[in-house]
Amino acid sequence: MRIAILAHERFPDGAKTATGVLRYGQHDVVAVLDREHDGANASALRRDLPETPIVASFSDLDEPVDALLIGISPIGGGFDETWRPDVRAALRAGCDVISGLHYFLEDDSEFRSLAEENGCELWDVRRPPSDLGVADGVADEVEATVVATVGTDCGVGKMTTTLELVERARERGHDVAFVPTGQTGIMIEGWGYPIDRTISDFTAGAVEEMILERGNDHDYLFVEGQASIVHPAYSGVTAGILHGSQADDLVLCHAAGRENFHGFSQALPPVPEFVDLYESMAAPVGGGEVVAGALNTSTVADDDEAAAAVEAYADALGRPAADPVREGPDAILDAIL
Amino acid sequence: MRIAILAHERFPDGAKTATGVLRYGQHDVVAVLDREHDGANASALRRDLPETPIVASFSDLDEPVDALLIGISPIGGGFDETWRPDVRAALRAGCDVISGLHYFLEDDSEFRSLAEENGCELWDVRRPPSDLGVADGVADEVEATVVATVGTDCGVGKMTTTLELVERARERGHDVAFVPTGQTGIMIEGWGYPIDRTISDFTAGAVEEMILERGNDHDYLFVEGQASIVHPAYSGVTAGILHGSQADDLVLCHAAGRENFHGFSQALPPVPEFVDLYESMAAPVGGGEVVAGALNTSTVADDDEAAAAVEAYADALGRPAADPVREGPDAILDAIL
Repeated sequence: MRIAILAHERFPDGAKTATGVLRYGQHDVVAVLDREHDGANASALRRDLPETPIVASFSDLDEPVDALLIGISPIGGGFDETWRPDVRAALRAGCDVISGLHYFLEDDSEFRSLAEENGCELWDVRRPPSDLGVADGVADEVEATVVATVGTDCGVGKMTTTLELVERARERGHDVAFVPTGQTGIMIEGWGYPIDRTISDFTAGAVEEMILERGNDHDYLFVEGQASIVHPAYSGVTAGILHGSQADDLVLCHAAGRENFHGFSQALPPVPEFVDLYESMAAPVGGGEVVAGALNTSTVADDDEAAAAVEAYADALGRPAADPVREGPDAILDAIL
Repeated sequence: MRIAILAHERFPDGAKTATGVLRYGQHDVVAVLDREHDGANASALRRDLPETPIVASFSDLDEPVDALLIGISPIGGGFDETWRPDVRAALRAGCDVISGLHYFLEDDSEFRSLAEENGCELWDVRRPPSDLGVADGVADEVEATVVATVGTDCGVGKMTTTLELVERARERGHDVAFVPTGQTGIMIEGWGYPIDRTISDFTAGAVEEMILERGNDHDYLFVEGQASIVHPAYSGVTAGILHGSQADDLVLCHAAGRENFHGFSQALPPVPEFVDLYESMAAPVGGGEVVAGALNTSTVADDDEAAAAVEAYADALGRPAADPVREGPDAILDAIL
């Protein structure tokens, strides 16, 4: 699928969805729309991004695309009215529009009529399907080994770790599927339920449904985790993924130097306590164990310092660890495969 | 408020909402509607229920009421069409209708027009307000001591324990408020959010909002718990209540003889493990400790056997315990007040 990604004024570092899709998506990204970086190239702005031209608007695209993907999400998840001309132009050109905003494009009467007139689809990734239900507690019955990333906090690299593991496992010849649980992961995979938006009674059920749908067609499922099992606001999402997936292997993700839950006053417990917490929570339902750790060292400039931080993290865990982006995920994969 | 409670063909044992409101609500219950027990009295059907006449339909009521409360919830939460004449008659008589069904009365066009014509309100208790948000992690800042019931499983008596504790604490002269989290509790209190129906990102936030709303006006808040922290389907709801409330004291509720999660193949962990699980999950956010236990012995016929079961439960917990219905909640309250 040929796509353009809208990321005005936030690209690259404020556009996690855009950079996630650029790095890990299977899409053919024709261009990024960013009026601030018109004429630049994504790979020049950040070296981990593929070569992708940046243009000022949808009408500046040199070639046709199948879809426009909204690659940014302002705080609150609203729709920025300065994006309307791009979405309008995309729909008039017969393109689908994919969005992870809290504001649903399908509820916008102009977009809905334009989509109908031009035979396009509006895909609001954050809208969970209405037929989700309660978990049956049977995710462990699938044939695949289920691996889940879990975290000490939000924003420590669970999605990136999961995607690096999937990519490298495939390179190593394994039959692996990715189970996304958040908007960026869903856009990358083109499938999945937004677990943070489900009704709380159905959180585990939505995850279980994904595991059952893919778990007999692959040797390994890699489930994208969310938040932290003791997060002051989001622990319910984490618990739902842990028990809904009944993962066999857990990979504990953490960010170097993180001391408090991001945006909260509460301190993170020490790393070994997280191992105990996840394993004792998993024991009655699924019985998963922490087999390795992933440390995000992106805030550590010096490579030697980063390597030392990873080593200290592995010591605290008593398990192998790596920074899957800086060092590659092989040390983690070796503990799983 | 004078009310009638609809509980056709399920009263009393299949009508948890009806019996909960009869036992613990502040309402003046004029009658129960149950076409199967027309002419009987609630207190004759079950000795723990107050004297309340039973009539066959709304039009058989001897005196006017302010509201009709739907006191049963079939599996799936649908609306039984045989109830329509009662709801219609109530609205035509100018009564409000209170419902905890998944099927929202407000979305029923006949009921909505009747309510408008007659100036009545339809209160769908299970519909969460649309303005809930993410928790700020600040529930511990309220002045009240926050007590939460937690459980080994669903249906072990968390709501009943909470309400018995509230009632007895008031009798003992304390300034206490009840914080409901489920439909029956909300109907009893006339206030509260249905935590199992919130968006999973907002589960803790909805609980926190209730704590902040009442936490500076009372000496104690008693929070109704839900499910179990290791429940195969609902652990996310439990985690959200634990971290959203940041309860100081936890009362662990259990049912005598319960070995598996109700309706699931997974075995319950031993009781001492539940104490560790709840305390280690609470430690980073709120720091609550299990101070006492409540054992539901309703399935044990013999009083001596029930007392022995409570004693064994207290030993396993290493804390005081009681069956709050059979023995009264004083032993539990003494550990809190």
